[in-house]
Amino acid sequence: MRKSVLLLVVLSIAAGTVMAQKSASSSSTEKEISSVLQQQVAAWNSHDLVGFMAGYWKSPDLTFFSGATETKGWEPTLDRYRQRYQANGAAMGKLEFSNLNVEQLCPNAAFVRGQWQLTMPDGKQSHGLFTLEFRKLPEGWRIVHDHSSGEN
Amino acid sequence: MRKSVLLLVVLSIAAGTVMAQKSASSSSTEKEISSVLQQQVAAWNSHDLVGFMAGYWKSPDLTFFSGATETKGWEPTLDRYRQRYQANGAAMGKLEFSNLNVEQLCPNAAFVRGQWQLTMPDGKQSHGLFTLEFRKLPEGWRIVHDHSSGEN
Repeated sequence: MRKSVLLLVVLSIAAGTVMAQKSASSSSTEKEISSVLQQQVAAWNSHDLVGFMAGYWKSPDLTFFSGATETKGWEPTLDRYRQRYQANGAAMGKLEFSNLNVEQLCPNAAFVRGQWQLTMPDGKQSHGLFTLEFRKLPEGWRIVHDHSSGEN
Repeated sequence: MRKSVLLLVVLSIAAGTVMAQKSASSSSTEKEISSVLQQQVAAWNSHDLVGFMAGYWKSPDLTFFSGATETKGWEPTLDRYRQRYQANGAAMGKLEFSNLNVEQLCPNAAFVRGQWQLTMPDGKQSHGLFTLEFRKLPEGWRIVHDHSSGEN
């Protein structure tokens, strides 16, 4: 009898530890990913596109889906942002993310959904949704795929 | 010496088995997911929206992103398709998927990217991209999140 009680106590402590570790790990992943996204927003709002791009995997295999267009690679994605938001007097405006939902799928992969809103200097607003795949890389959590869309 | 050789042989066989299992598992996942998508296309092209929806997680937590609009839940997603493709004499047209990229992230989660093309009875075509999160559920691999977008 005492043996079973002891076993139960040991098992409960073990289970508690595992659950606490799991929860700590998920919540630290959530914090790390949220922090990458917050840094992106801060960089965008300082008109620092290279800083904004630091949240993305610096690889020719990064993929970026917008509307019906796929952009492949970190450099082409930066170029796309430059052409849309910095070329020919275009403005970057003020970016905000909301309704973030971070879901860790496995130790090294997470899936993030959320909304974006952009307010231009003339007050015009646009908004839309994004789906991100994050991977834990040696340099930290980075976006390896971005699907963004807005009002059609 | 003979012991180390034996150990090496045993380890090599074990590693070979693990690799073969991993590869078989990824390729069977890829086949299962491709088959879910093929069944969706076949159902769509038979104007069977409920059959098409069988590829989705039948849950109020299914999410569907299109443009700037989030639809939540299996029933509301079916309603959205009905309103866009079956109400007021609308046509469903012929659906095709291409450039499918299935990436298994963990035993129970996969990430799928691809292109869709829709050809209407009057010959008009539209096309776009999708990002899907698949989960392995007791009923099989199902889409738990769909982000689709087209020409803006």
